[in-house]
Amino acid sequence: MDTSPASGTRDLLPGEVLRREAAFAALRRVFADHGFAPIDTPAFERLEVLMGKYGEEGDQLIFKILRRGEHEATGEADLALRYDLTVPLARFIAANLGDLGTPFKRYQIAPVWRADRPGKGRFREFVQCDIDTVGADSVLADAETVLTVAEGLAALGLSGFTVQVNSRRALSGLIEAYGVPPRLEETALVALDKLDKVGAAGVVAELEERGVPEPAVKLVADDLAADDPADPVRERLATTASGERGLAEVDAVLDLTRPHVPAATEVAFSPLLARGLSYYTGPIFEVVHTDLDATLAAGGRYDGLIGTFTGQDLPATGGSIGIERVLLLLADRDAGEPGAPVVVTVFDEQGRANATALAARLREAGIATDLFPGEGRLGKQLTYADRRGARVVLIRGDDEREAGTVAVKDLVSGEQVAVPETDLLDHLAEGYGLGRDASA
Amino acid sequence: MDTSPASGTRDLLPGEVLRREAAFAALRRVFADHGFAPIDTPAFERLEVLMGKYGEEGDQLIFKILRRGEHEATGEADLALRYDLTVPLARFIAANLGDLGTPFKRYQIAPVWRADRPGKGRFREFVQCDIDTVGADSVLADAETVLTVAEGLAALGLSGFTVQVNSRRALSGLIEAYGVPPRLEETALVALDKLDKVGAAGVVAELEERGVPEPAVKLVADDLAADDPADPVRERLATTASGERGLAEVDAVLDLTRPHVPAATEVAFSPLLARGLSYYTGPIFEVVHTDLDATLAAGGRYDGLIGTFTGQDLPATGGSIGIERVLLLLADRDAGEPGAPVVVTVFDEQGRANATALAARLREAGIATDLFPGEGRLGKQLTYADRRGARVVLIRGDDEREAGTVAVKDLVSGEQVAVPETDLLDHLAEGYGLGRDASA
Repeated sequence: MDTSPASGTRDLLPGEVLRREAAFAALRRVFADHGFAPIDTPAFERLEVLMGKYGEEGDQLIFKILRRGEHEATGEADLALRYDLTVPLARFIAANLGDLGTPFKRYQIAPVWRADRPGKGRFREFVQCDIDTVGADSVLADAETVLTVAEGLAALGLSGFTVQVNSRRALSGLIEAYGVPPRLEETALVALDKLDKVGAAGVVAELEERGVPEPAVKLVADDLAADDPADPVRERLATTASGERGLAEVDAVLDLTRPHVPAATEVAFSPLLARGLSYYTGPIFEVVHTDLDATLAAGGRYDGLIGTFTGQDLPATGGSIGIERVLLLLADRDAGEPGAPVVVTVFDEQGRANATALAARLREAGIATDLFPGEGRLGKQLTYADRRGARVVLIRGDDEREAGTVAVKDLVSGEQVAVPETDLLDHLAEGYGLGRDASA
Repeated sequence: MDTSPASGTRDLLPGEVLRREAAFAALRRVFADHGFAPIDTPAFERLEVLMGKYGEEGDQLIFKILRRGEHEATGEADLALRYDLTVPLARFIAANLGDLGTPFKRYQIAPVWRADRPGKGRFREFVQCDIDTVGADSVLADAETVLTVAEGLAALGLSGFTVQVNSRRALSGLIEAYGVPPRLEETALVALDKLDKVGAAGVVAELEERGVPEPAVKLVADDLAADDPADPVRERLATTASGERGLAEVDAVLDLTRPHVPAATEVAFSPLLARGLSYYTGPIFEVVHTDLDATLAAGGRYDGLIGTFTGQDLPATGGSIGIERVLLLLADRDAGEPGAPVVVTVFDEQGRANATALAARLREAGIATDLFPGEGRLGKQLTYADRRGARVVLIRGDDEREAGTVAVKDLVSGEQVAVPETDLLDHLAEGYGLGRDASA
């Protein structure tokens, strides 16, 4: 039988689970420190909750669950695995608004499922890591999102990244200022958003291809020729109401976050940043790392989405850390916590009770202790201890039991010393820093 | 639109998530302290991995996932949500045996999905919490499972429970000793296993109904009439080879665990305990709490199951804590961690930068701080802080800013004092034990 996990999914071995758990725990701490509270939603939702929310392409990537029992034969689905954490959040808010009250700040770190073609670093089951503030229209909430996400990335061990900030309102104003017809706004934004990928000449070519009128393209080309396009764009934004308001909210985010972001973090106005999702309505941001050539996090304000579930508009803003990508980037930096530092060996039936008692005594003293689950050759037990990353192996054969000692084998030096039973805890504390009182 | 979660699933609000996370963290600590390592497997498996493993009834409760893209129209499923953690473990072991080596001790705390009829305390998505030792045939591994499960329950705050121990081998020997024909062994065991539920008379009646011969039923009735049926059963087991071997492994588990279980925990031979699952081959156990009338955990040895995936027999033993039931039992004992202890208020645009800086300063000092995500009436912000379980609210209006003070409102006493900005951290440390150095 084929025993591999289903296509696009992964079996996670202990080191990897511990590495991931440590990252999630670090993020939970940062989120809680910033006043966000955890929620959880089911892995699957009724089909109609998810369908139609992710565009046609997205709909096709949703894993649908077959109806059950007598209905299975219909071949119809009635449930679907969640595709992201945002649409379930909107449903959750609508269902629980009375209990939650607003504003409500939540985080969620949980898997989502997408039937994408699997590829290097692209999985069908992957974890998303979101914070959102619901029911707050102040730019303060946008700024807090940026600060929390930046602190989260720092807590994961990343530094030297840049937070690029823009505003959907500013983009609308900019399109207006360039004289792009409103009906071409969306397509023009798609072209502008590619600056990082295709460069100024590429953007200009793409705008022409997309039918943006010549005079407007000329203005874009002029702005992109500047040392920092943000300068001419700022002047241009001041000429439209929407541009002015958008620029004001960008500047508010910059002013509120810059003094407080982690060391070596830049926060910059990125006037062409558009972010793909059409549901954004206000400030938007992306965290990029130039050296690593990676987008680490992103987010923005989406004041309309939750209203589609609640029936009343409820402003919201949030951000998402690309935790799977970050974990890949950090893969070589952190080997994950080791297993129990002590392995107790057992050689025969007579030694079982003694070994169990020894392990119990060590655990009582606050030392994580692995009792080899069987009896057998020392060599096999040493291999086991080594593979589990243990620091020392404790050996009690007949000789040791008779002498009232324990042989302590150091797996790094390979040395083995006989320690009187009564001195064992002191020996492990002094020699290896093990035990509750080791630091005292 | 219906905004409730799908039938049989739950939305979890922050307090409940924190309560659950704290329980999972406590168990992870205990498991790691006993040398178990975490693994994770995907939420779904290829359909053929799961089908046929849970009996006919189980198969019908599996959530199946529709094929995608052009194949969706077939109405066929190719994937299924995991139904437990044991079958995926068997597949995982087969797929990763080379990397893992044996023996291998793993734990996994993860959701499973069953299309059961939802009911009080019965969900379609619920968390299982398993430990297993693969590749060890020693009873030492069975005893360690019991000790680890018992420590886990104690770490969750439970006490006064009993570990009932039996052995599938002992049961076979007992059936033989009673003179029940081998073809009636399974059905007789089902009847015997109901002693706790239906009493001695009920068991006798059920054995008769199931066609067990009169003389055998008479022997059972005699044993059940004893003060402690374990006594006559012990004598009876000594009369068959299988019974003798089974009793020896029960006694080994009792002897190895009794000196080391948590205080007020009993470990007892429970001669009629059968556990439903037919895949058990050796020692089995259930942890019951008489006062709470609940089975808290259970497990046993299953030496044949993993071989169905690996193609070679691989002994295994494990246990599972009924974490959802335990969480229900403990629901009133633990309210979960509160939110951030400090909420910083904001009243106007001019106060934003100041409030952001104040929150940053507190977080830097190790105090989790929630910045109210907006500006507005103090009443609304106090309601928010109260709902989030905050301890103090910090207020900086124009007056405070001018005077260089912060108003600290105590949400328990309702009192409000003006504290000079420079004294704020000391005030929060001394008055509320907040901050990294508060305990110093």
